[in-house]
Amino acid sequence: MGLVVQKYGGSSVADAEGIKRVAKRIVDAKKSGHQVVVVVSAMGDTTDELIDLAQQVSPIPAGREFDMLLTAGERISMALLAMAIKNLGHEAQSFTGSQAGVITDSVHNKARIIDVTPGRIRTALDEGNIAIVAGFQGVSQDKKDITTLGRGGSDTTAVALAAALEAEVCEIYTDVDGVFTADPRVVKKARKIDWISFEDMLELASSGSKVLLHRCVEYARRYNIPIHVRSSFSGLPGTWVSNEPQGNQPMEQAIISGVAHDTSEAKVTVVGVPDKPGEAATIFRAIADAQINIDMVVQNVSAASTGLTDISFTLPKTDGRKAIQALEQAKSAIGFESLRYDDQIAKISLVGAGMKTNPGVTAGFFEALSNAGVNIELISTSEIRISVVTRADDVNEAVRAVHSAFGLDSENDEAVVYGGTGR
Amino acid sequence: MGLVVQKYGGSSVADAEGIKRVAKRIVDAKKSGHQVVVVVSAMGDTTDELIDLAQQVSPIPAGREFDMLLTAGERISMALLAMAIKNLGHEAQSFTGSQAGVITDSVHNKARIIDVTPGRIRTALDEGNIAIVAGFQGVSQDKKDITTLGRGGSDTTAVALAAALEAEVCEIYTDVDGVFTADPRVVKKARKIDWISFEDMLELASSGSKVLLHRCVEYARRYNIPIHVRSSFSGLPGTWVSNEPQGNQPMEQAIISGVAHDTSEAKVTVVGVPDKPGEAATIFRAIADAQINIDMVVQNVSAASTGLTDISFTLPKTDGRKAIQALEQAKSAIGFESLRYDDQIAKISLVGAGMKTNPGVTAGFFEALSNAGVNIELISTSEIRISVVTRADDVNEAVRAVHSAFGLDSENDEAVVYGGTGR
Repeated sequence: MGLVVQKYGGSSVADAEGIKRVAKRIVDAKKSGHQVVVVVSAMGDTTDELIDLAQQVSPIPAGREFDMLLTAGERISMALLAMAIKNLGHEAQSFTGSQAGVITDSVHNKARIIDVTPGRIRTALDEGNIAIVAGFQGVSQDKKDITTLGRGGSDTTAVALAAALEAEVCEIYTDVDGVFTADPRVVKKARKIDWISFEDMLELASSGSKVLLHRCVEYARRYNIPIHVRSSFSGLPGTWVSNEPQGNQPMEQAIISGVAHDTSEAKVTVVGVPDKPGEAATIFRAIADAQINIDMVVQNVSAASTGLTDISFTLPKTDGRKAIQALEQAKSAIGFESLRYDDQIAKISLVGAGMKTNPGVTAGFFEALSNAGVNIELISTSEIRISVVTRADDVNEAVRAVHSAFGLDSENDEAVVYGGTGR
Repeated sequence: MGLVVQKYGGSSVADAEGIKRVAKRIVDAKKSGHQVVVVVSAMGDTTDELIDLAQQVSPIPAGREFDMLLTAGERISMALLAMAIKNLGHEAQSFTGSQAGVITDSVHNKARIIDVTPGRIRTALDEGNIAIVAGFQGVSQDKKDITTLGRGGSDTTAVALAAALEAEVCEIYTDVDGVFTADPRVVKKARKIDWISFEDMLELASSGSKVLLHRCVEYARRYNIPIHVRSSFSGLPGTWVSNEPQGNQPMEQAIISGVAHDTSEAKVTVVGVPDKPGEAATIFRAIADAQINIDMVVQNVSAASTGLTDISFTLPKTDGRKAIQALEQAKSAIGFESLRYDDQIAKISLVGAGMKTNPGVTAGFFEALSNAGVNIELISTSEIRISVVTRADDVNEAVRAVHSAFGLDSENDEAVVYGGTGR
């Protein structure tokens, strides 16, 4: 038996009972003969409480100190988890990100992992311990300061450790049963996916699926570490994310993996842009200089009579104000007529590697939306994904229609608890 | 201007308001031209809450993990304090005990400092920062594990850093105005002491005064670091503890520094011990083997008729059960008749280097107690201290009588807030 890395999110260790339940699960893995490394997030609402405290003393907390503060959360959960395991008669030691050898760059609050040197973890395992590691955190290579990895950081810690320790699998325990063909809060008949390729999972993650973040899946794909997303409550098999199906899973991939939706974006339309070379570049340079990532971009066909066109793009709502300011400042350089800002939009995406070889998926997608009376405002596609922007009010209807049209509905209603991803 | 180390206890940083108030005080010290190093305890009840969590997952938490858990408390307070200072426009960086170079032995939960290598603190100061250091914690020299220093640990961290950095003074900010001639909760007319010698302070600390712990004063005495104990609320000058009076303080030491009392001890009497060489050694070897520290010891004159004597000693109440068990197990080796255990006692101590050269202090002490109708059960003395054991019920009466008899009462009633020492 080899080494497994297990990651437990904040909702799984929200209180003492949760910690004891997780401890039992970990001990079971150890008893089955595995070496076990556990990555743990902060308990329940701890992080939010710490952020609230920070804002009480400083409206814009300094990055270095903010990281020092937030990492207290994992320190608490990991120590308690190690105690709970020892109380079950098994040896356990907890390690901070720094002690576990998670080396990052110096960008506080969203550091990138640049190396993992888990010498202390190896030693602890060789001595028979279960190793508990703080998720979400590392130490900067140059300054030796404590850093945090930003959103999805604990999942990334788990995958990075799994890669460095050459684990058999990285198990991500969460409060849902796995990755679903759509958000079960919206589509009651969404099905749990047994296996999904890294590529499809990456597209789902960029399209609004919140179970795994793009960054973590990308890391796993690069080092070819199978991820098993599963519930810490039910103990049932969840969703495997890997290059190839596992065990007795069907070798042939489904045509469509799932439908994702995202209501976190807004649409900016730059109206009346002169249709000449370089205009788009000027617009998106202004946006990029403001450190804003954009998603979809569409340029209308210009009206022959005026020689003017409109350019629309989507971006996170949280960056909306900054984008408008940046464009207003560049107005004379760009020469547009006006700006329109619309945050009542939704993005709906159909993802599946099978669409490469199955003509008609795009047509079926549009037909399903049309039959449901949903108007399409923007379209963008990749090789294995089609995304459209619709009115936010239409999103649930649209997702259900597409899910049903592509035969993804399950026989039974699934009963699942669905929540956030922790961090 | 030189370097000052300031230490703030948990009650001074109990909430965001407290942290902001302390930040202002720290910035004032910096503005006055000092280099400032701040040692901070965990906020308010954080430590108790963490202990409670630990006990929910494990009745006897493992030492290593317990230390990992508890040190989260200082991590939170130090990061918040650094943020609050930066919010006032001054540079600040927080450091864990490990980052600050506090090297300890490997005895978890009560580690001893064996070296302080504050290279990162020096660098931070030289770059113009205020350095915020987590109290109460360090890193073990051999295993590089996180350790905690036990009771009074943050004060000890502050004094140890002051010594390593050759600070002018170590300021201990607390929720009282300084060291008093008696516990102001008992003696309304207790006076704040302006200056006290290390020696007298050591005796007061071992006799029940809780403002400074013996360990911290001993460290300061060894490295000759003046301590200034003062209130973080009032900003008034407090009590200087040092070898020599400071500034315009009177050069001549008071005859009596103060009256301390302690109700945390119990008395064990071993009844009917054969009065022959080696008996006491056998008794106290049994106690020492049980890892129990004893305080006072008195052996009665033996009764000529029986050749038997009684031996009484005092010890922390918390060790009472363990001591009785140890003695019962050694009963045949010792050969006593019975054991008596009494936890309704109090110890009252009069401390002052002046008693060395002023005859009559002992007589005056006993007279004061006698006039107050207080019965004396045990007596023990050092060169600069007299202690007696009385009934616990008599303790307040006894302390007030002695305080008054030695002219320590102030003209006015003092109005002070009096609390614990944090850690």
